[in-house]
Amino acid sequence: MGKKIVIIGGVAGGASVAARVRRLDERAEIIMFEKGPHVSFSNCSLPYHLSGIVEDSEQLVLMNPNIFKQRYNIEARVNQEVIKINRDRKTITVKDLMTDKTYEAAYDKLVLSPGAKPIKPNLEGIDNDNVFTIRNVVDIENVSNFIKQKDLKDIAVIGGGFIGVEVAENLKLAGHNVSLVEFANQLMAPYDYDMAQILHKEMVDNGIELILDDGLTKIGDGYVETSSEKRIKADAVILAIGVRPETTLAEESDLETGNTGAIKVDHNYLTTDKNIYAVGDAIEVYHRLLHKPTRLALAGPAQKQARAAADHMYGIPNRNQGVIGSSSIKLFDLNAASTGLNAKTAEQAGITHDTVYVIPGDKVGLMPNSNPMHFKLVYEYPTGRILGAQAIGKGNVDKRIDVIATMITMNGTLEDLKDLELTYSPMLGTAKDVVNHAALVALNQLEGRYQEVKVSEVRGLVESNAFIIDAREKGEFESGHLKNALNIPLSEFRERLNEIPTDEPVYIHCRSGQRSYNMVIALNNLGYTNIHNISGSYLGINLYEYFNDLVTGREKIVTAYNFN
Amino acid sequence: MGKKIVIIGGVAGGASVAARVRRLDERAEIIMFEKGPHVSFSNCSLPYHLSGIVEDSEQLVLMNPNIFKQRYNIEARVNQEVIKINRDRKTITVKDLMTDKTYEAAYDKLVLSPGAKPIKPNLEGIDNDNVFTIRNVVDIENVSNFIKQKDLKDIAVIGGGFIGVEVAENLKLAGHNVSLVEFANQLMAPYDYDMAQILHKEMVDNGIELILDDGLTKIGDGYVETSSEKRIKADAVILAIGVRPETTLAEESDLETGNTGAIKVDHNYLTTDKNIYAVGDAIEVYHRLLHKPTRLALAGPAQKQARAAADHMYGIPNRNQGVIGSSSIKLFDLNAASTGLNAKTAEQAGITHDTVYVIPGDKVGLMPNSNPMHFKLVYEYPTGRILGAQAIGKGNVDKRIDVIATMITMNGTLEDLKDLELTYSPMLGTAKDVVNHAALVALNQLEGRYQEVKVSEVRGLVESNAFIIDAREKGEFESGHLKNALNIPLSEFRERLNEIPTDEPVYIHCRSGQRSYNMVIALNNLGYTNIHNISGSYLGINLYEYFNDLVTGREKIVTAYNFN
Repeated sequence: MGKKIVIIGGVAGGASVAARVRRLDERAEIIMFEKGPHVSFSNCSLPYHLSGIVEDSEQLVLMNPNIFKQRYNIEARVNQEVIKINRDRKTITVKDLMTDKTYEAAYDKLVLSPGAKPIKPNLEGIDNDNVFTIRNVVDIENVSNFIKQKDLKDIAVIGGGFIGVEVAENLKLAGHNVSLVEFANQLMAPYDYDMAQILHKEMVDNGIELILDDGLTKIGDGYVETSSEKRIKADAVILAIGVRPETTLAEESDLETGNTGAIKVDHNYLTTDKNIYAVGDAIEVYHRLLHKPTRLALAGPAQKQARAAADHMYGIPNRNQGVIGSSSIKLFDLNAASTGLNAKTAEQAGITHDTVYVIPGDKVGLMPNSNPMHFKLVYEYPTGRILGAQAIGKGNVDKRIDVIATMITMNGTLEDLKDLELTYSPMLGTAKDVVNHAALVALNQLEGRYQEVKVSEVRGLVESNAFIIDAREKGEFESGHLKNALNIPLSEFRERLNEIPTDEPVYIHCRSGQRSYNMVIALNNLGYTNIHNISGSYLGINLYEYFNDLVTGREKIVTAYNFN
Repeated sequence: MGKKIVIIGGVAGGASVAARVRRLDERAEIIMFEKGPHVSFSNCSLPYHLSGIVEDSEQLVLMNPNIFKQRYNIEARVNQEVIKINRDRKTITVKDLMTDKTYEAAYDKLVLSPGAKPIKPNLEGIDNDNVFTIRNVVDIENVSNFIKQKDLKDIAVIGGGFIGVEVAENLKLAGHNVSLVEFANQLMAPYDYDMAQILHKEMVDNGIELILDDGLTKIGDGYVETSSEKRIKADAVILAIGVRPETTLAEESDLETGNTGAIKVDHNYLTTDKNIYAVGDAIEVYHRLLHKPTRLALAGPAQKQARAAADHMYGIPNRNQGVIGSSSIKLFDLNAASTGLNAKTAEQAGITHDTVYVIPGDKVGLMPNSNPMHFKLVYEYPTGRILGAQAIGKGNVDKRIDVIATMITMNGTLEDLKDLELTYSPMLGTAKDVVNHAALVALNQLEGRYQEVKVSEVRGLVESNAFIIDAREKGEFESGHLKNALNIPLSEFRERLNEIPTDEPVYIHCRSGQRSYNMVIALNNLGYTNIHNISGSYLGINLYEYFNDLVTGREKIVTAYNFN
């Protein structure tokens, strides 16, 4: 008989450990205990059942115990709750949820992959039967059935992370009235505040009522109430305010947890017991850019941890690279992706850094479906080391972010990024790729040949009567522009140099930042020393309701959020 | 007055030099001479005018001399042919093609960006007025007008590189009968023979008559003839058999050319005259993987060369990284991309290497538009250094190839590739990305835990009565399978071990290679020593008409090519 490998939890991490152990050792006895009725379901696909994109919830279950047995000789026991780890005698105590009987099972190596559970705040109405959290296939079936059977219209989603945003989108696609309440001043923490505005606008444009900077205080009959005393219609409430690592079993077994509240593991994903590993959303991982433990509830890293843990059982060395945090999301017509540090996290960590925000086309402009891509690059100052990036647009933003993720892992700098020789054809990209372009702008900034200010500073500039140049052509200017801006098109500025002052700062924007970039560089070459590009440019200004009173001639923007 | 920068050629390379010089030096006098009527047109987009995807050929022209002048103070002189370089007195002699008058223009620095010209073989009918080559906007207008005005039906495209393939596709989309004749045994040299089959099938499935391994010998009235004495209907003929660097002017000026036939340049793109630079398709570049000069007619590298040359004029150091060759193409419903070395070029260069060919899903299987992605990875043996990759599928193959291009540039290995933490959401990818997956399989191969044979070897295996296992389920097997294959589904093999011999090699395939991979690994773990996965698997076998007689039960495949 081979080694007895026992795994607690049968989704991403657990199932991956089991599969890898089998590939390493045909003789191992592998048993996976899962509290719920399903193993190996597609966690990340759950929200898509609400819109019917995944029509049948059964599709969400990728493998059943039968297939695990037949194909991989893995025993997957569902509806079995592990209630105790008996470390002294290397067994676990299991409760069969179908019979309520308990029994013991022995292990040589134990793997904890219990995941994380949705947070439920303690407030009035939280236990009403129209309040849901979403963690597994049963949860999503419950929500879906409840809404359909009662033919509900108004639904409130609480929390604007991945799950909240995807649930809101899919409920909206199914035709419901959806409100999304988020405590912070923005959705989707991986994105900086300026980039998040694009996501906010997409949500609002698609009819979701977005309530930011506000918290849930009460769930009533047909409504919810918030800290700002808003009352929002809600026949059902989906709670997605965050997750907490499942550490009960680990803590009861005296396995150490870290400052993050998650299970502590070593280089090889061993807990403080050398026969017990832990992987997935319940553990803390090492952040390779922040140089400290963090939590990261993502499927990709969980799979890598699972493999490393299995390898370690069989003496195969593991190189622990830490995590950088890469993710993507589709949101109505937009795709968004991010990797590494955003400006906010770099700031908080005290890492000296700078950013550039460019909006090039995602493919050759004359091709069908060519669209602007909002791309923000974060790099270390003064080394030029790539720290992170965020991209949002209708096109293949994830492609660019995957290149940045690769650069971060390989310790790439702006110099490396500018030189990258990437694929190009007119239908799929541009000869100078978005990432090359961003690196070139960033190098100019690093070299002091170029300065930019953030779009968030525009109100201050306008109200303080700063000298703002709009470098677009006359027709574009007339269709809407900043109140105090002087229109000097790039095509005219050389004849109008006398209008540009040398004794005060000058701020320039155009539509996407390309023409103003050229004007900024040209003025610097002419000896001007106080010229700034407005990053995000007019496309950025156009994202903010906040700027409505500063802009003449355009249709008023209605988004959910105003600066404060 | 600033420096006088004169540029010969006003497309990709030339226009980029001009724009960069302007950003570096507001006072420089920049003059660009272009023989044709247009500067700065989208070379790579030309074929799309034939289908009407680019409806108006004027759209192909990105900038006109007027905009160059107004926005960038760059003088773009069209219809001006430079006929001589007078190196001794640093001038060029120019012929105005509108007036036939010649004049001289002085330079401080001269940049050659003359491009490359289509090759026209010397054969009967080559000068007929229905024979075209495609290099610029005028050419594509001529073809388009000729075909439309005469309402032609049958068109022959000669040459299966980027231009030939894209021209054939766009003519087919416009409703013509299109034949494509290629001298080699495959289209698209950047792809290995096995990967090219997928492109062949896409062409044939979309109604293009594909004639490989055959050369043009004669152009007659309404037809062309080939070496194999095929006579193909052709009211018009598009020649796209390759390009030759435009070196006439350089050679007449005693500037050195290299063994590749292109202009020789140094680290900074200087020719053998220290006041003359050369960039773009007319020069030879250094291949960083092959360690020797090569030619690479692509827009991205041309832009990077242009920038480096301009920088050098102003004392800005340039890091010459050489080229690796990254490209992509859309072909009907498929996207294809490649970077670095394919197996063929690695072989020719004598670089010890190995490959894996995997066919994972491009996104989570239950999501809409999830499709298999054919992915071939080439790595150095025994170092595991990434040398190249090719990917073909309906999804975002270019994203994966850009990651590989980044890895090559950053000297990444299989270990690095397996660890990459890339973006994931169910609509856009899989938690274990295609590139992670390929790296894991390759590492198993490198470690000797796994062996694979190429799909091209299948005929040999079947005809020599080798022991072949089909690991698919019974129903799949019955719908079509290799004649001699024994059906042992992955889900049954543990009970049927006695049927698997230990004294002869065993070859296993399934549909996409995933299940057979698991069976191969499991058998190796059980002590079997001669087990091989058939790379490409049944999806690969299904690409080849060549295998029709070896397969029972399936619909016969008709593709253009048979192994020989």
